[in-house]
Amino acid sequence: MKYPIRSLEFKNNKLFLIDQRVLPQKYEKFICENYKDVEFAIADMVVRGAPAIGVTAAYGVVLAALEFIELPKKQFLVQMNKACDIINNSRPTAVNLMWAIKRMRTLLVNNDTPKEILQKLKTEADNIADEDVKTNKKMGQYGNSLIPQKATILTHCNTGALATVEYGTALGVVRAAFEDGKDIFVYADETRPRLQGARLTAWELVQEGIPAKLIADNAAATLIRDGKIDLILVGADRIAVNGDSANKIGTFMLSVIAKTYNVPFYVVAPTTTIDFEIETGDEIEIEERSSKEITHIRGVQIAPDNIEVYNPAFDVTPNENITAIITEKGIISKPFKENIIKLK
Amino acid sequence: MKYPIRSLEFKNNKLFLIDQRVLPQKYEKFICENYKDVEFAIADMVVRGAPAIGVTAAYGVVLAALEFIELPKKQFLVQMNKACDIINNSRPTAVNLMWAIKRMRTLLVNNDTPKEILQKLKTEADNIADEDVKTNKKMGQYGNSLIPQKATILTHCNTGALATVEYGTALGVVRAAFEDGKDIFVYADETRPRLQGARLTAWELVQEGIPAKLIADNAAATLIRDGKIDLILVGADRIAVNGDSANKIGTFMLSVIAKTYNVPFYVVAPTTTIDFEIETGDEIEIEERSSKEITHIRGVQIAPDNIEVYNPAFDVTPNENITAIITEKGIISKPFKENIIKLK
Repeated sequence: MKYPIRSLEFKNNKLFLIDQRVLPQKYEKFICENYKDVEFAIADMVVRGAPAIGVTAAYGVVLAALEFIELPKKQFLVQMNKACDIINNSRPTAVNLMWAIKRMRTLLVNNDTPKEILQKLKTEADNIADEDVKTNKKMGQYGNSLIPQKATILTHCNTGALATVEYGTALGVVRAAFEDGKDIFVYADETRPRLQGARLTAWELVQEGIPAKLIADNAAATLIRDGKIDLILVGADRIAVNGDSANKIGTFMLSVIAKTYNVPFYVVAPTTTIDFEIETGDEIEIEERSSKEITHIRGVQIAPDNIEVYNPAFDVTPNENITAIITEKGIISKPFKENIIKLK
Repeated sequence: MKYPIRSLEFKNNKLFLIDQRVLPQKYEKFICENYKDVEFAIADMVVRGAPAIGVTAAYGVVLAALEFIELPKKQFLVQMNKACDIINNSRPTAVNLMWAIKRMRTLLVNNDTPKEILQKLKTEADNIADEDVKTNKKMGQYGNSLIPQKATILTHCNTGALATVEYGTALGVVRAAFEDGKDIFVYADETRPRLQGARLTAWELVQEGIPAKLIADNAAATLIRDGKIDLILVGADRIAVNGDSANKIGTFMLSVIAKTYNVPFYVVAPTTTIDFEIETGDEIEIEERSSKEITHIRGVQIAPDNIEVYNPAFDVTPNENITAIITEKGIISKPFKENIIKLK
């Protein structure tokens, strides 16, 4: 395969998602025919990554409209609002989900007929998807300006095409630097428990031919201390007004090591990941996921029966550990609060 | 099962090891009938944990003597020295291996007949095994003096009965505190890539009924920052004279987080883990293991074909990140160098 990776596609009134649960051993499409399929796909991480979740949710609203199109307007709206609530609650941490649903919901409040609303919802979802790709390219450009020639870059989780519609956030910056001819090298954290680094980032890097090595999350600290990492690029699932950033579990740990050893630590995320309603990361709900993510890998049990598990999916990196936040509107430097508020 | 876990047993001129590669789903014995089996068992991690490796190596020398017992003395010694070299090179980092082989080798340099040497080697290996259990109980006592009532303890890798002959080093301290009636709680790092925490520590904790939760290594940092961890107990594979300690990959990362958030970080290891011949951790050889440990879990491939891997098995925690070193001869405080030299 050597065409741009695109995580999702809406055609024939269905949403086709690359099934990210089975990559890289299988490349399969998961087809959402109704909004409940979308709820499942987000909750079960068929699709993951804050921007990709947002766009998927938007198409979920379109699928709901297709389902309820024949209802009288009033009932249509009742059902649509219910569908929006359900999709909105499919996962709690990534704010892009709530942002996309909110944006789609604005189209429900007018005098249009259900058929007109459906048409507008479809256009809006397409817009959100198109904007995502443009946003990522823009972040790639800004981010690339920070990447030295011959840089060795550490990544965590998957922040690539699969986490977005195309191209990626933090991995989009890697793509931009590579396309720019920079002789870069990537160390990719495997990112337990869901192994998005091993399964998805490694797959994207191999597809692109970007020189890279996969490591256990435990190996990152020594590389950082030993001066083998020039910079760290991570994504975000929600950014508070003060710059505190929720991202995949393990990001906070990396940020502490980076700060201790003076390695630049960049968060790469679209402004849709900023939650202007929360002042600090303390207000971010951290999703706890199934213990099976820890006790089983690909259906194979690794831990003993009867062991309890604590499995938070995200952690919060405090603003003081972040060097800068790379958005499609530019690179946000400190003081974060002052500069983030300007973006509202 | 509710008898003390014992990682190895020598009987009928064979060494019976609990096969730690298949725990906890299978409880099987791996039988070493000759010293090459021992070399394989150590290299392939049938048995692991610095003290357990040392005792296994000692019995490997006994098995070599059994193999070569009928040779004339001169040839016997040639073969025995070759066997010692081979076992000695089975893994590079844990110094207990070299220590045990060196101790066994002293019995080769005398006027005894091969049969007399065999007898002495057997007695010496038994002594090393017995001493290990006593040493662990002693470390447990010293360590327990540092454990507050209701302490929540974080562990990394497996440092229990399976890493030793019985009882354990860092997990031996946990056992001692639990036996003492302290109302403790353990968070166990799963410890990628080999998952000794998920597979072995979790199994020992369930066997003992010690309240515990298993976590991804990535989740430890947030628990530490949020004040949920009272202290961290880890083992060691080699300790330099200045206190720098090599241990399972990921230990160094924990130590940085612990230092940043002022959580006590204890290394628990017998004095046989101290390498008096090296001044600092810079001189410790760090084993790199197969990329398959990262790309496959229990035979199931998780990463794409063609991704390169960097897989160091250990890292070095600098002495400044260590609160104290708990040995069978007492608790070593700072200045480590001064206090470690006294133990020689």
